Amino acid sequence: MAGRTARRRVLRVTLPQDGTADGTAGEPAVAVAIRADARADLLAAEEPLGIRVDGTALTMTMRTPGDDVELAAGFLVSEAVVRSREEIAEIKLCDGVTCGHGDHSEAELGNIADVRLAPGVTVTPGARRNFMTTSACGVCGKTSIEDICVLPASPLAADQTRFAPALLASLPDRLRDAQKVFSSTGGLHAAGLFDAAGSLLAVREDVGRHNAVDKIVGWALLNDKLPLSGCALLVSGRASFELVQKAVLAGIPLLAAVSAPSSLAADLAAEAGLTLVGFLRGPSMNVYTGAERLSL
Amino acid sequence: MAGRTARRRVLRVTLPQDGTADGTAGEPAVAVAIRADARADLLAAEEPLGIRVDGTALTMTMRTPGDDVELAAGFLVSEAVVRSREEIAEIKLCDGVTCGHGDHSEAELGNIADVRLAPGVTVTPGARRNFMTTSACGVCGKTSIEDICVLPASPLAADQTRFAPALLASLPDRLRDAQKVFSSTGGLHAAGLFDAAGSLLAVREDVGRHNAVDKIVGWALLNDKLPLSGCALLVSGRASFELVQKAVLAGIPLLAAVSAPSSLAADLAAEAGLTLVGFLRGPSMNVYTGAERLSL
Repeated sequence: MAGRTARRRVLRVTLPQDGTADGTAGEPAVAVAIRADARADLLAAEEPLGIRVDGTALTMTMRTPGDDVELAAGFLVSEAVVRSREEIAEIKLCDGVTCGHGDHSEAELGNIADVRLAPGVTVTPGARRNFMTTSACGVCGKTSIEDICVLPASPLAADQTRFAPALLASLPDRLRDAQKVFSSTGGLHAAGLFDAAGSLLAVREDVGRHNAVDKIVGWALLNDKLPLSGCALLVSGRASFELVQKAVLAGIPLLAAVSAPSSLAADLAAEAGLTLVGFLRGPSMNVYTGAERLSL
Repeated sequence: MAGRTARRRVLRVTLPQDGTADGTAGEPAVAVAIRADARADLLAAEEPLGIRVDGTALTMTMRTPGDDVELAAGFLVSEAVVRSREEIAEIKLCDGVTCGHGDHSEAELGNIADVRLAPGVTVTPGARRNFMTTSACGVCGKTSIEDICVLPASPLAADQTRFAPALLASLPDRLRDAQKVFSSTGGLHAAGLFDAAGSLLAVREDVGRHNAVDKIVGWALLNDKLPLSGCALLVSGRASFELVQKAVLAGIPLLAAVSAPSSLAADLAAEAGLTLVGFLRGPSMNVYTGAERLSL
């Protein structure tokens, strides 16, 4: 397992500002050179993480190394396999011994998370992703929200937390300030968990925004903080159906995104009683669902 | 199946510019109201598309409806299931009759793509995603590039197309101009295919950038244009391992991204002989691999 960033060589190419060296029009009277400087660049690390449950491979995700136990735990919550810490007996990264493959190089280790569920807990055929990819009919016609997602046992509607719009408007800057790797690579999504007073509870980064959210949820599960009542989750990009599903299953009453939501994200948010905020930029925001949680 | 956009109600909340109504500090001398206007907003549509091959569910992806046959075809190329049009007998969207479920509502139809492969073509256990999620060992220790991807039969190194930097620098604006849905929703990724003279060959949009690329590749497959020698593919976001894999399998010699690549994207590009350009913005760009294809 490597770190969260990786150094690679890059050729930085810069055109002359007047564009005369474009090579597509007539030659300029005085040739202006294109600059090309070789340098080192820090990239966001991306490596596969396999998640194995009770000895069976469940999934593989491309992720930025770090917080991998949290990522595995959060994935299991998001897939409705578990909903409390007690349902997981142990999660550990493969050390090359337990899997019986003792000949891994050091660089190869740490890219699989071995999960042991508590006695009596199983990955049921009804688990969400499993269901979607293995049911006999596929997803033919399964377009209604109820058919492709799992809603939590205790509805979000019971969470009457109120959030001040000005506080929400301040969160994107605070999330950006807390992003360690983004500032060095420009290449990571982030998810930040805040309480209604604006305290930052956790921030996680990943090349995949779904992984960043799973890491937050996994952190909460492992610290016995689920459901995340009274919290706001901010994501750096867009709000998809999948991110709404993760927030809902974690019991988070408000999901905010810097960019646009999709139609299905808004529909699931409405169905689940989640407050969905999009285009949270500068002094304004769009509230798609659950506006009653904003103190206007 | 719905359209590519969907209208939803939204509450547009705008704070006063001086921030005095933030509700977190002392009350201002003169209260300034937060504006909250209800309006309609266009969102990028997101719906599930199931892909069923010879009667068996292969995968499900959340996508923006449209170009679904291309999406299914491109996905099969990206997963190394097929590499030419002849290997596919037929792809059609489920009409609720062939699947035996004739009671679908109109809105539910069109969300599964039924693929019939040509005689002799099968989804082999060695197909990429299949391999990754079902092999007994999971991906424990499988961190080397050779283990998690498939390289094409004819290496990209043989493609000696040259691209002018000024031409590459002009592509992001041209891709944005060609995006129909983004301009109305702000919520879609795009992929654009260009030739070395800068002609736009195809543009596709989707809530998932991997889907946008699969739609491009599927368009090429269905029009007998694979491999896409001499072409440049521009994506609106970041360049992940997965996008590099898709470009490589489609025979595209240059992949450019408006944002950052990941480490594994750069590594696979180097291994496969792909030219990888990142941070393609304004007059400059970073060339991570294959700089010999740029006419400097």
